[in-house]
Amino acid sequence: MNGAEALIRTLAGAGVELCFANPGTTEMHLVAALDAVGMRAVLGLFEGVCTGAADGYGRMADKPALLLLHLGPGFANGAANLHNARRARTPVVCVVGDHATWHAQADAPLKTDLESLAWPVSDWVHTAKCADDLSRDGANAFSAATAGPGAVATLIVPADCAWGATKGPLAVEPSHAGAAGVEEARIEAAATRLGRAGPRAALLLGARGLRRRGLDAAGRIAAASGCALLAETFPARMERGAGVPLVAKLPYFPEEATALLGGFETLVLAGAPSPVAFFGYPNLPSSLVPQGCAPLLLAEPRGDVEAALEALADALGGGRVGAAAQALAPTRPTGRLDATSLGAAVACVQPEGAIVVDEALTSALPWTLASLGAPPHTLLTLTGGAIGQGLPCATGAAIACPDRPVIALQADGSGLYTLQSLWTQAHEGLNVTTVVCANRHYRILRIELARAGIAQPGPSALALTAFDHPAPDWVALARGFGVPALRVETAETLCTALSRALGEPGPHLIEAVLEGPAQA
Amino acid sequence: MNGAEALIRTLAGAGVELCFANPGTTEMHLVAALDAVGMRAVLGLFEGVCTGAADGYGRMADKPALLLLHLGPGFANGAANLHNARRARTPVVCVVGDHATWHAQADAPLKTDLESLAWPVSDWVHTAKCADDLSRDGANAFSAATAGPGAVATLIVPADCAWGATKGPLAVEPSHAGAAGVEEARIEAAATRLGRAGPRAALLLGARGLRRRGLDAAGRIAAASGCALLAETFPARMERGAGVPLVAKLPYFPEEATALLGGFETLVLAGAPSPVAFFGYPNLPSSLVPQGCAPLLLAEPRGDVEAALEALADALGGGRVGAAAQALAPTRPTGRLDATSLGAAVACVQPEGAIVVDEALTSALPWTLASLGAPPHTLLTLTGGAIGQGLPCATGAAIACPDRPVIALQADGSGLYTLQSLWTQAHEGLNVTTVVCANRHYRILRIELARAGIAQPGPSALALTAFDHPAPDWVALARGFGVPALRVETAETLCTALSRALGEPGPHLIEAVLEGPAQA
Repeated sequence: MNGAEALIRTLAGAGVELCFANPGTTEMHLVAALDAVGMRAVLGLFEGVCTGAADGYGRMADKPALLLLHLGPGFANGAANLHNARRARTPVVCVVGDHATWHAQADAPLKTDLESLAWPVSDWVHTAKCADDLSRDGANAFSAATAGPGAVATLIVPADCAWGATKGPLAVEPSHAGAAGVEEARIEAAATRLGRAGPRAALLLGARGLRRRGLDAAGRIAAASGCALLAETFPARMERGAGVPLVAKLPYFPEEATALLGGFETLVLAGAPSPVAFFGYPNLPSSLVPQGCAPLLLAEPRGDVEAALEALADALGGGRVGAAAQALAPTRPTGRLDATSLGAAVACVQPEGAIVVDEALTSALPWTLASLGAPPHTLLTLTGGAIGQGLPCATGAAIACPDRPVIALQADGSGLYTLQSLWTQAHEGLNVTTVVCANRHYRILRIELARAGIAQPGPSALALTAFDHPAPDWVALARGFGVPALRVETAETLCTALSRALGEPGPHLIEAVLEGPAQA
Repeated sequence: MNGAEALIRTLAGAGVELCFANPGTTEMHLVAALDAVGMRAVLGLFEGVCTGAADGYGRMADKPALLLLHLGPGFANGAANLHNARRARTPVVCVVGDHATWHAQADAPLKTDLESLAWPVSDWVHTAKCADDLSRDGANAFSAATAGPGAVATLIVPADCAWGATKGPLAVEPSHAGAAGVEEARIEAAATRLGRAGPRAALLLGARGLRRRGLDAAGRIAAASGCALLAETFPARMERGAGVPLVAKLPYFPEEATALLGGFETLVLAGAPSPVAFFGYPNLPSSLVPQGCAPLLLAEPRGDVEAALEALADALGGGRVGAAAQALAPTRPTGRLDATSLGAAVACVQPEGAIVVDEALTSALPWTLASLGAPPHTLLTLTGGAIGQGLPCATGAAIACPDRPVIALQADGSGLYTLQSLWTQAHEGLNVTTVVCANRHYRILRIELARAGIAQPGPSALALTAFDHPAPDWVALARGFGVPALRVETAETLCTALSRALGEPGPHLIEAVLEGPAQA
């Protein structure tokens, strides 16, 4: 057995079922090992597709996929979506081939410092030293990736370690480090503070606190104490919809978030870090928590958030069931297609059990509001701010959950970053319906220009925030990758197209041409 | 004046004329500064397009473009083509926005260690400390980027440095460090060795040695000494064609390269490093130079290769003009379309002065041979092995040389990495004709599987090296980005389509469907 097979066999033994990959010459023995072990391989036509798919898969499967990438450039191509995965605390085992150990000194054209590239987007990095170490290295990578709730573990495998002879694989168990029970003192302190503050307190939920178990406990806490329920702005995975306790996401812009939090004297943190601004702005602080609102830690994002929430609900005497969102379908929209009618259309037709991947950015908010009473669904968002996450994440989520419909709410500018995802959706026959919110602008940057005091953008600023000449033809692009597609320009046709796409197996894409506000 | 304007004004004063960019919130003041200074901005819909375009521009313009990228993920998205630019020794000034200095500690979602990401693909990296330093930092970045022949200089600019008030710009001159004249002892040693070895010597040309001045000197050296002329396998920029001295590129596979070099007892290195294998293989050495063939350094890649070659030609008594390639058009191909007839078709129709960007990989060799006697043209190749370079590089070359036709010979798998380049070609109306060599496989990996001893690839190996189900429809993809396109399946229709595309302004794409060899 060679090192490659020992590594893949170790990972398969630990429960890794599939590999997202775009390999190269240095990974050929690892590719052969996939066949030797019988591990499923899914090709992405660009590494950012592979890493984003591993993120979406890991969020839904709660176990790591294997990634197989080629040297420094292959890793760099996938780094943005690994960054998102790391911020989502998704379990991922990323294996990167490197030059043979003895070839490194030759400074061949593809030589790079892979560890330097890997650390900024990984929680754990290791370079294998020899074939005999590979099963142990693989076991360690798996343990690191499954340290609760999850982490990005990057193992660099020089080619001679992969092709060298070695002994067999190692048995390995998932790690549960981090999810190590509940701290009683925190429960008591939170119970006391919530009991005293009542509706002047908010519970900010993040990480596993937004799964159904955590949300049900949060609903009981709110019912017992009167506190408000908030969610971090960009949850990795959040259950929502009719029957699920109602939780409002913290607003994106710092002024709005701070104003909201200013209404509370206590902010209990359950799986969410103390909130900070997405970007620094002149004369605004990093922290979104205003003076007069005291944060109190219940559970760290990597802790056992669900157990802590249940213990807090019990401490508050909550045998009661909390309030949940009412089933409520918005009125079927008609006429003009804009972010509001688009959001209503999706909320009207989305089926129970849908997985909604939201990278709609400036087009997202209306759907977020319209879908509060939609049939229960799972929301995956852009955790790390590295755009180009939506289409790959939807791809991976669909592979993890082949029986659930996946809806990708996709901004057009971000979607163009990793549009190659559509090919994998077509090749694998995945049940993904992509709705492209086509405004042909980086609309958020027009807003940010204004926020930066640039009231009259000049030609360069206009050129760098618009891509409407020519407007990308998403129908052609989707068909080019084998995904059936059509363009809609009214709310009625969007509703019809959505219903039809969701009713047919396989991927579909709908380009929803938005009438924007008058251009900024 | 704020720091951003001081920086951009410094760079503009040094001669930087345009900026390839995909900016975000942290770069809004830098974007506004482009307008304040009047610097042209070219948008790429993915950062890999911007960095590859800056590489192509720099190779042809011999001066740096400015890159403007957004934080760690934006930089990572562009890193692969920066790697290629670094290997090509292309002058590039890469400015990356980062969080405000005081916001870094907040660990906001987009926070990464940018220096760690930047070093592996940059020759020079610096993080600005304050607004007052930015003009000096920009001058230093420009000097680093123009240290002959060129280098990748990455300047990280925290947002508060960009928006902070400061004094005006700095005057700066291009650096010419590195190209510091000729070492007489090397000239004498090379002249002696070449004089003794005659046809048992080869001159291996790289870097500036492959420009016209270096090639003319090399032709005189060959005429005077009888030595063979070779070029590094992946030149950044090489002049070729009728009237230019004939130079054979060193073969890619190590066995072939070593066999070729085994025919010589002396290898004089003129701008090329001593050749090494692209990848390490079991039982093959890193060095391609066999025992019995002694390398001798004439000029380093970063040295004044042209002056060294001229001095050597003079030392050999060469007032003579060297032999040059004869004008020779291959027979116009007919019938079956494969790499051979494709190469002949391009060689038949390519006009004088064409810039040919070769990322055709396994489809490239026939064109390389067929075009030896084509009208004089410039060749740009994949210097760093990071695929996805061809379409962006062609885009940048066309911007640098609007009056020259650009032909992109493009492998389909690599082309799909950065197909968003087509939008920039359409938006800017660039004279790029892309010929996609559509074999719907990573053919090189089928070869590498066989080289690794995997004679019967299993289902995972087959799945990870083919993308023929569905076959990407390049005509649809190109039209989706606004580039006129058509598909050809015979050599005659390819010739006709090429002539038509080259005769019309603006970008065109031709999907040449190749009848492959029976699938490996």
